[in-house]
Amino acid sequence: MRTADPYKAQHRRRQILGAAVECFARHGFHATSTAQICAAAGMSPGNLFHYFPSKAAIIAAIAEQEQDNMLRLFERWSAAEDALGAIEELALAMMALSSDPLQARISIEVAAEATRNPQVGALFAANEAQVKAGLAVLLERGMAAGQVDPQLDPGKAAVWLVALTEGAIARVVLEPGFKAREHQPMLRQIIRRFLRPQPLEPG
Amino acid sequence: MRTADPYKAQHRRRQILGAAVECFARHGFHATSTAQICAAAGMSPGNLFHYFPSKAAIIAAIAEQEQDNMLRLFERWSAAEDALGAIEELALAMMALSSDPLQARISIEVAAEATRNPQVGALFAANEAQVKAGLAVLLERGMAAGQVDPQLDPGKAAVWLVALTEGAIARVVLEPGFKAREHQPMLRQIIRRFLRPQPLEPG
Repeated sequence: MRTADPYKAQHRRRQILGAAVECFARHGFHATSTAQICAAAGMSPGNLFHYFPSKAAIIAAIAEQEQDNMLRLFERWSAAEDALGAIEELALAMMALSSDPLQARISIEVAAEATRNPQVGALFAANEAQVKAGLAVLLERGMAAGQVDPQLDPGKAAVWLVALTEGAIARVVLEPGFKAREHQPMLRQIIRRFLRPQPLEPG
Repeated sequence: MRTADPYKAQHRRRQILGAAVECFARHGFHATSTAQICAAAGMSPGNLFHYFPSKAAIIAAIAEQEQDNMLRLFERWSAAEDALGAIEELALAMMALSSDPLQARISIEVAAEATRNPQVGALFAANEAQVKAGLAVLLERGMAAGQVDPQLDPGKAAVWLVALTEGAIARVVLEPGFKAREHQPMLRQIIRRFLRPQPLEPG
């Protein structure tokens, strides 16, 4: 019988997920076989199935990792004094996370899978709801502090901040030669111009 | 031997593409078999292969259809007197095109496939290059007319306009209950606030 060494088990799980991410990014979820993941991880199928009973379980674990990354970002920024600055930093950090093309391709795979696989869809929806709620809280704090246009609907504005960062992730994957770092100033500019109070809003 | 009736052939091709789009949106490109497409189109494999020699050829035809839709939009708006208004209308029209969830899912499938399949990738890149060049021309016209902030880099701003509309497409697919129509005013607002001349740009 296997003895449970929690440290070793966690290390193994990470090793499998790393190998799976490489395979999925290259071939997509559906075209990747568990045999390919085993080969990339240097493990036997029996060993792999000890940690993840199915390919679906690996995909769900990757979606959970994405959620954890996002929550850690929010923990870091949600208490910042400067709410508008925190929103900008969050958007830049999300773009930086995805400036690794492997990570960005996996984000698109997870998104595509979320539309087809109810388990991944539920994880994805929960993740998104948390991100949008967190952004809406920051927007409301920014409004109270006079940094954010109080005429904006915080819920709707949060949706568009998410859309903007997703668009940035899509650029990393789809645009050959897109350098996230070069585009950071313009992302900051779009967010600032969109959110700040508009003293002279025309028409 | 088959006789070539161009009208009938075009009708058949459309019929196959419509059936394929439904299958792909539901299962993804890789998990869809040509047998499923035949069944959905009500055709024998021999008949289907007469029009499309492979699943890859069907995928390429769908990517070409997307490109045609985009080019038609540009033909309609690129000569408009009001360049800033034309940019807003283009973005809204792209969001409207993708407010059909089937179409939006196919857009994400094509994007994911573009990262893996060089033929689709080349089509996709050509499409994108044309869209960005068209937007940059409109931005420059808007700058000359005093409608668009002349300090913006037209090429970079075009990239972010594309990112914004891609983000909107992602919302249609990924956000249960997202109503494109309700979000049109905010998309217009983001674009306008981002692009217009900034008389009082702070620090």
